Amino acid sequence: MVSSYEDIHFLEETLGFWKQLNQSQKMKLQNIIIKKSFLPGESMHSNSEYCSGLYLIHTGQVRAYIVSESGKEITLYRLFDRDVCIFSASCIMRNIAFDIHVEVEKDTTTFLIPTPEFQKLSDEVIAVQKFTNDLMASRFSDVMWIMEQALFTSFDKRLASFLLEQSVVDASEELKITHEKIANHMGSAREVVTRMLKYFQNEGVIELQRGTIKILNRKLLERWSNSYGSNNT
Amino acid sequence: MVSSYEDIHFLEETLGFWKQLNQSQKMKLQNIIIKKSFLPGESMHSNSEYCSGLYLIHTGQVRAYIVSESGKEITLYRLFDRDVCIFSASCIMRNIAFDIHVEVEKDTTTFLIPTPEFQKLSDEVIAVQKFTNDLMASRFSDVMWIMEQALFTSFDKRLASFLLEQSVVDASEELKITHEKIANHMGSAREVVTRMLKYFQNEGVIELQRGTIKILNRKLLERWSNSYGSNNT
Repeated sequence: MVSSYEDIHFLEETLGFWKQLNQSQKMKLQNIIIKKSFLPGESMHSNSEYCSGLYLIHTGQVRAYIVSESGKEITLYRLFDRDVCIFSASCIMRNIAFDIHVEVEKDTTTFLIPTPEFQKLSDEVIAVQKFTNDLMASRFSDVMWIMEQALFTSFDKRLASFLLEQSVVDASEELKITHEKIANHMGSAREVVTRMLKYFQNEGVIELQRGTIKILNRKLLERWSNSYGSNNT
Repeated sequence: MVSSYEDIHFLEETLGFWKQLNQSQKMKLQNIIIKKSFLPGESMHSNSEYCSGLYLIHTGQVRAYIVSESGKEITLYRLFDRDVCIFSASCIMRNIAFDIHVEVEKDTTTFLIPTPEFQKLSDEVIAVQKFTNDLMASRFSDVMWIMEQALFTSFDKRLASFLLEQSVVDASEELKITHEKIANHMGSAREVVTRMLKYFQNEGVIELQRGTIKILNRKLLERWSNSYGSNNT
């Protein structure tokens, strides 16, 4: 249940359809919402059959990814403060026939709208359908971008982009991340990542330390990530 | 404009929301619909900025694909009789930030619902929003499948699946398709396709003739496509 002014303001900001609800719908929603906290490493969603509802990220960071039968992963997108996790309510969208996993990366607090209530609102309010539509289109676009990257962009360019993104996410030039983890994010193998990181180090772009990747020349890294490339490594 | 009994029956079958429209909305839709025919090789849609509307495929076959800067293609999905092409109306979906190309493969007849009319219906009728939602979820699933194939499945398995699918589409065991075209469908290079086809030939699965691939042992090809594989070639 949410009732404080801050919480309701958060709902207003996060749910594009809030203003289109009538007073009774708003009250019902406030009463039904569950506040949930997650620790890094916990799973927020892991199977298309399990369908808890719509998670509104209050604060924190989660990543959505897919896994192959052999355990290979690729990160599809990340969600931050005020983002909405739609795939934890995927059962209300007919025709969704794939599994997305959502894993918590930093301490995360959420507001959960349970599936039955969200389903009911979707059936009643056209603005809720539009909201779902917009969310899905947005995630679809994220996934298309990742797919184009993975299929059409050379590995050096992708790795440079990844390091730059990671340094924005961590707000630091020193990235505390293992080569194994980078490989998981990119759907690649650890050896391939290590080889390319060593190449970047030889070029003076980064410095590899124990458990840390230090960005030495950001400009060069940016130029790398923007360079035209079309190999499929 | 459509008015015959057959055409209206087609709309009823194709548009999941038809029965939720009132008489005036149905009449308006019938009057505004444009019948359009396409020849093989013609483009039905090619840019997210150009937004003709919702194409209902009456008869025929089209394929949706993406293209890299360097001209590399990968097929995302195909549409057949009674399928609906949503991305030619992508402008009405906010947050769609990618370009899909739709190319006609066989003689195709369509009913086009122009964008403004479809937009208006979407704003008025909740069932139209749901219809769009279901369509998008369905295409999203297609794309996720292709992505998982491309990233997680070994090339021999993918090529075997492609040949089997193509023989269903063509309703023939003799596929009239060039190695170049297969490479385009799969986001690969011609040389890679040729190498693997020759390997299949050596294994007695197919026979390569001038401009034709003949399936000799369908069972073996099926076993190939179902075999567990997780290399990324």
